[in-house]
Amino acid sequence: MNYYGQEIENLIAELGMLPSIGTKSAQRLAFHILGMDEKAVEDLANAIISARKNVRYCQECFTLTDDELCPICSNPKRNKNIIMVVEDTRDLAAYERTGKYQGVYHVLHGAISPMAGVGPADIKLKELMQRLQKTDVEEVIIATNSSLEGETTAAYISKLIKPTGIKVTRIASGVPVGGNLEYVDEVTLDRALEGRVEL
Amino acid sequence: MNYYGQEIENLIAELGMLPSIGTKSAQRLAFHILGMDEKAVEDLANAIISARKNVRYCQECFTLTDDELCPICSNPKRNKNIIMVVEDTRDLAAYERTGKYQGVYHVLHGAISPMAGVGPADIKLKELMQRLQKTDVEEVIIATNSSLEGETTAAYISKLIKPTGIKVTRIASGVPVGGNLEYVDEVTLDRALEGRVEL
Repeated sequence: MNYYGQEIENLIAELGMLPSIGTKSAQRLAFHILGMDEKAVEDLANAIISARKNVRYCQECFTLTDDELCPICSNPKRNKNIIMVVEDTRDLAAYERTGKYQGVYHVLHGAISPMAGVGPADIKLKELMQRLQKTDVEEVIIATNSSLEGETTAAYISKLIKPTGIKVTRIASGVPVGGNLEYVDEVTLDRALEGRVEL
Repeated sequence: MNYYGQEIENLIAELGMLPSIGTKSAQRLAFHILGMDEKAVEDLANAIISARKNVRYCQECFTLTDDELCPICSNPKRNKNIIMVVEDTRDLAAYERTGKYQGVYHVLHGAISPMAGVGPADIKLKELMQRLQKTDVEEVIIATNSSLEGETTAAYISKLIKPTGIKVTRIASGVPVGGNLEYVDEVTLDRALEGRVEL
């Protein structure tokens, strides 16, 4: 099915291998790229290669970044005594966008999932425990996802840390702000009831 | 808002400039790319640069391709006496996927649109007329889109070609196959009625 010639077919195939980009989207992207300035196309290709080459884990919190320490760990204004544990770098970014959190993070790069064969040794858990020994930490906030894997991981980490005497908390589950009760699932409604606070 | 470090932010920004890729999608794509094999990342970047560098117009039909003639024009089995006029290369691919059309194409790269300042001289119309003089063409099938611009272009081309004595046709408008009448707009229903055929 070669309508376009090999070069364009190849570009469509490469773009089509990216997540959530189907054949139609890949074609649209390919033709957009073919219509871009040659300079802009080189910038795009270089950004791809350069980011992949230079990306590494922050030595402190293991988020993906391009230096020894990520912008958050190297910021002297952040409170290093509070660590929020998240599953991946995008979750970190989600909390950063709130602009409210002043502590630092620890990125696990996954969650414990016996079904998928991911055990505690496959995520950055050992690194978290080492970090807790090195630094004086007041509180560990577990912000793994509210999925089966996220909850399992939260329970596991909590058990691991409790004996050290460090305070361990979990972000609240409940009805999303602006959410209509009618459309919220039963498990969430139940959690919201359990987690009710006095006004 | 630098959560990730410059390299990753830059990659997200570059990806976010592509059409129909918002910030969230750009982030998802960026982290997917960061997790890919270095070899696969290079293949992707090379496909982008190489396609952009080597893409050109087919000398015959002006579709985007990577050689002097596109795979269709260089195929001796295609009927060179029937030319289907389309707005862009993707429209050509759409008809190719039907597998039914045996003629060749002419790609206009746009449609006449006074509103957008696109006149007959801005699309590959002169090239079509030159082509009709050079080759012995039986029929020109106008398959521009069924939009205002597409219809204007179709009317204009038809007027231009008629004096040469070459047969000019337009693809049918009507109810899409599998379409439910209830959900089809009035203009389409009207066209389908006008274009009714005897059974």
